[in-house]
Amino acid sequence: MKIAASLALAAAALTLASPASAQFAKPEDAVKYRQGALFVMAQHFGRIGAMANGRVPFDAKAATENAEIVAEMARLPWAGFGPGTDKVTPTRAKAEIWSEQAKFKEHNEKLVGETGKLLAAAKTNSLDNLKVAFGSTANTCKACHDAFRKD
Amino acid sequence: MKIAASLALAAAALTLASPASAQFAKPEDAVKYRQGALFVMAQHFGRIGAMANGRVPFDAKAATENAEIVAEMARLPWAGFGPGTDKVTPTRAKAEIWSEQAKFKEHNEKLVGETGKLLAAAKTNSLDNLKVAFGSTANTCKACHDAFRKD
Repeated sequence: MKIAASLALAAAALTLASPASAQFAKPEDAVKYRQGALFVMAQHFGRIGAMANGRVPFDAKAATENAEIVAEMARLPWAGFGPGTDKVTPTRAKAEIWSEQAKFKEHNEKLVGETGKLLAAAKTNSLDNLKVAFGSTANTCKACHDAFRKD
Repeated sequence: MKIAASLALAAAALTLASPASAQFAKPEDAVKYRQGALFVMAQHFGRIGAMANGRVPFDAKAATENAEIVAEMARLPWAGFGPGTDKVTPTRAKAEIWSEQAKFKEHNEKLVGETGKLLAAAKTNSLDNLKVAFGSTANTCKACHDAFRKD
């Protein structure tokens, strides 16, 4: 019973061996993965933004919890932009992601760095620090969207 | 420029104040969130399964990295099953999620516990430990799917 369940689930979620380009069973999974990770990240980032912009009261614990998830999620989506994942629709991903990979990677790494700073700022228990880090992270999001995401 | 970008992003990702039921701007976002989180989790869990079931060579470092993401993601989806999110389609969520909330919550908590054990097992650097924890976690997934997910 245990083994049967394990095998069934493993088969359902099977992915092939390790190179980044082969992490997903099919390109559609990579797209679903990156879109899911980006959406989850945006939800938690938005909750920090609501505090940074005064729409909800500042709550350092909640800000930190959200920033932890944002920082964790920021590492994930990029694996979903591998070779062959540019043909899957619907997507807002621009062709430049694949034609300007070094630049795209720089943006990805910048976001990982900025979300790390956002988490550190949340932990200082200072709304002013949170505002600065939120603004800087938001600009990092926007710069990448402007360059690599369709309107 | 910085402020404009912050405001634009915050507006785009705006969520209302804190109660669990109001974490999302609209029920569709909650559904997209829970589906995204579950999909990301399943991808990383599948990579551990491939090792546990001998489809790819055991790599303790990769197993741990994947288990860290699984354990982190396992905490997230449940917030997306709040009141009013049962009417959004398409979904495989059964009505029992909302009519048997205590039972559903038990399953959610069990998964958080099991994925914590899976991470601990991955860190032991033992494939045997990983297999046991993977099987146990997979059964936890399956039990909840059997009770609360449509085929």
